[in-house]
Amino acid sequence: MDKFTVYGDLNSGNCLKVKYVADYLGFTYDWVAVDILKSETQSEDFLRLNPAGQVPVIAFEDGRTLSQSNAIVQYLSEGTALFPDDAFTRAEINSCLFWEQYSHEPYIAVCRFHMVYLGKTAAEREGWRVDKGEKALDHMNRTLSQRDWFVGDSMTIADISLFAYTQFATEGGFSLQNRTAVNDWIARVGKELKL
Amino acid sequence: MDKFTVYGDLNSGNCLKVKYVADYLGFTYDWVAVDILKSETQSEDFLRLNPAGQVPVIAFEDGRTLSQSNAIVQYLSEGTALFPDDAFTRAEINSCLFWEQYSHEPYIAVCRFHMVYLGKTAAEREGWRVDKGEKALDHMNRTLSQRDWFVGDSMTIADISLFAYTQFATEGGFSLQNRTAVNDWIARVGKELKL
Repeated sequence: MDKFTVYGDLNSGNCLKVKYVADYLGFTYDWVAVDILKSETQSEDFLRLNPAGQVPVIAFEDGRTLSQSNAIVQYLSEGTALFPDDAFTRAEINSCLFWEQYSHEPYIAVCRFHMVYLGKTAAEREGWRVDKGEKALDHMNRTLSQRDWFVGDSMTIADISLFAYTQFATEGGFSLQNRTAVNDWIARVGKELKL
Repeated sequence: MDKFTVYGDLNSGNCLKVKYVADYLGFTYDWVAVDILKSETQSEDFLRLNPAGQVPVIAFEDGRTLSQSNAIVQYLSEGTALFPDDAFTRAEINSCLFWEQYSHEPYIAVCRFHMVYLGKTAAEREGWRVDKGEKALDHMNRTLSQRDWFVGDSMTIADISLFAYTQFATEGGFSLQNRTAVNDWIARVGKELKL
């Protein structure tokens, strides 16, 4: 992997995914802090890097850039056990990554954002987001009651991607107390990532 | 590609993505209609296919199943020009697919759902969804003002995935009138797909 720079905010689980994968694989990279709360993702300089105005972004020395956390971790983990070669295994991992962005992040991460960064109370969260977040965690708990990792027999980027915000679910007002399988898996992923 | 069955609803752009790619590549498949509005995705039988309760799903004769529209089109188009081999080109395509699910579908598709299927007027749409949908279409228009296809020099699954709901944007109360580049691209993709 060519040396690269990550533009990210350590408060963002989406950015942490990139850090976790890059560190786990031992890559050399520079980290440039971009503060979402100060709207630094909307500056002219940043929009040249990513016209969509979102972190994380990685940039290579030849000028290539890549955005979208899950696309970045797919790219970084290519050819490693985090993203195995078998076509159907990859498809199952990809399925988890899309589920994370559509059916998990908008609820678990956004409720956390509202509470931690906008100062709302748990009761002030949007009810529909809470309902969908609870469903997402139930779905994860059911899946993880039957297996240690989301796909296959070892940690993949599916686990790392889902771990990024699930580890902070309680900060968004969600309870993990009766979700033993999720709790055990969080500990398992954290240990594997040496956090 | 082994013969497969698609479980889908033709009213859903997510399901249409799978149909478009499978037809374009000339695959033989069965289509099983699942009615989202009748909650058929929440039936016991369906939840056995996809515990997340979402269409589309594809199922192979050996029992393997795969969910998430973009993961399915990645899998179906593997080894074809719709999803080229070059690692960075694939990464850019993947980036578009994740952007579609996070920054486009929840606004363009959901506003359409509210108007077409729940009978709301354009004025009754949720303001924050409208704002984000407008931004998504503006971002697409800027990108397409500089290029014919989202990635590379020919149609890929990035175009097909983004086309699926963008073609219906006006049904969700969005205007394409001043978004010439998007309009031209819709015609280009439609022609290529022989719709």
